[in-house]
Amino acid sequence: VDPELLRVVLVAPRNPLNIGAAARAMSNFGFSHLRLVNPYDVAFREARSAVRAGHILASAEEFKTVADAVADCSLVVGTTAAARRELQLPVRRLEYGGRLIRRRLASQPVALLFGSEKFGLANEDLAHCHWVMRAPAREEHGSMNLGQAVAVCLYELVRKPEEAVSRPERKKRAEAAAMEEFTRLLLDILARSGYVHERVESSTEMKIRRLARRLDLSAHDAEIWLGMLRQVLWRIKPGTDGTFP
Amino acid sequence: VDPELLRVVLVAPRNPLNIGAAARAMSNFGFSHLRLVNPYDVAFREARSAVRAGHILASAEEFKTVADAVADCSLVVGTTAAARRELQLPVRRLEYGGRLIRRRLASQPVALLFGSEKFGLANEDLAHCHWVMRAPAREEHGSMNLGQAVAVCLYELVRKPEEAVSRPERKKRAEAAAMEEFTRLLLDILARSGYVHERVESSTEMKIRRLARRLDLSAHDAEIWLGMLRQVLWRIKPGTDGTFP
Repeated sequence: VDPELLRVVLVAPRNPLNIGAAARAMSNFGFSHLRLVNPYDVAFREARSAVRAGHILASAEEFKTVADAVADCSLVVGTTAAARRELQLPVRRLEYGGRLIRRRLASQPVALLFGSEKFGLANEDLAHCHWVMRAPAREEHGSMNLGQAVAVCLYELVRKPEEAVSRPERKKRAEAAAMEEFTRLLLDILARSGYVHERVESSTEMKIRRLARRLDLSAHDAEIWLGMLRQVLWRIKPGTDGTFP
Repeated sequence: VDPELLRVVLVAPRNPLNIGAAARAMSNFGFSHLRLVNPYDVAFREARSAVRAGHILASAEEFKTVADAVADCSLVVGTTAAARRELQLPVRRLEYGGRLIRRRLASQPVALLFGSEKFGLANEDLAHCHWVMRAPAREEHGSMNLGQAVAVCLYELVRKPEEAVSRPERKKRAEAAAMEEFTRLLLDILARSGYVHERVESSTEMKIRRLARRLDLSAHDAEIWLGMLRQVLWRIKPGTDGTFP
């Protein structure tokens, strides 16, 4: 995916906070080409003065029509909250649509259109789209905030499926010898404190050993625990045989 | 995943718009338990009066400490913009962290913590977390808007990987007979209009036939095109042999 090939197109945005939020999400996820079709003038000016993502707003382009804003793109994708069956446009879930857009972004410019806060994309705007994409929001409340919709769509584009797989643990786990010392120390403490008999039964010893293993301590944390247990053992009152002061 | 088991916890949020945006994203993606730790009072009150997602804000719970807000959860996950290596907490990318949370949400309550707009989660807050999650934002600008961060994390939780796979086409494609008629009509029009010779060479005919097949028309669109071509053919001036009209 070449992020330079994506054009985020906001059609008739009204709220400067939303324009700013769209630009911020673009900056977060590494996209830079923002285009505005007939933005509400005051909104655009206010958004430009907002903090962060300033370079994206500064270089944002303004267009009079959707046709002009998407002219250099070979794929034009609209976003929608509802199913809009009347459009005869394929409506794709974000997971699948994102995959198609990523594939195209490898080599060719793609336009991703977002409608106004209040009405979404009009039918005239959608007529410029090859297909329409929909986030998996609830049917009962599918309409997303504009800034959030942009963020979620862009996240899907930069998302790396291979990252969802577990990685080999980098943190070194405790070695068996350390956990055996942990078990011995704990058993001594439990015996001296009367939680178990002075002569620990072998079934009890096994239970405690398994309990310790289940902690699955890192090597680092095992060291800390051993230090604490040694100190506790040293301080603890001896059992009834009185061999310890 | 049981969405009723997720607790979205905003720690010290300051901006009513962000609280409202978090609630809206929760409503979009089907989550309902919002918890606030020490919210700025005015912000919480203003957010409550905001449109949409009202039921989530109305039932939002307020807590004095992070410990209280996460008390019933068996997994507590923080969110962060930076790597925060000093914490000795595993920092997981959203793709992988989301998978772990989904797995736990099948049976047990999980808390997902978001820090204040300005400072994120403090070290004291993060000490309550089992691990920390980070969206794949740019190193140079990793800090996301609070409402957008909530939306992106929740989207990852409801995202269905199996949806990314292409589905069998539901729209019926044109049958070969229709495309053959399309090719014949187009060839006749091209001959009558002088674009090709009246006696079309077979290599030209093959080129035009392949050109038509590449359109990959749906059955519905093929009907429309056939109607248009028939009308054009009927109206077009005949070639130089003058057999028409």
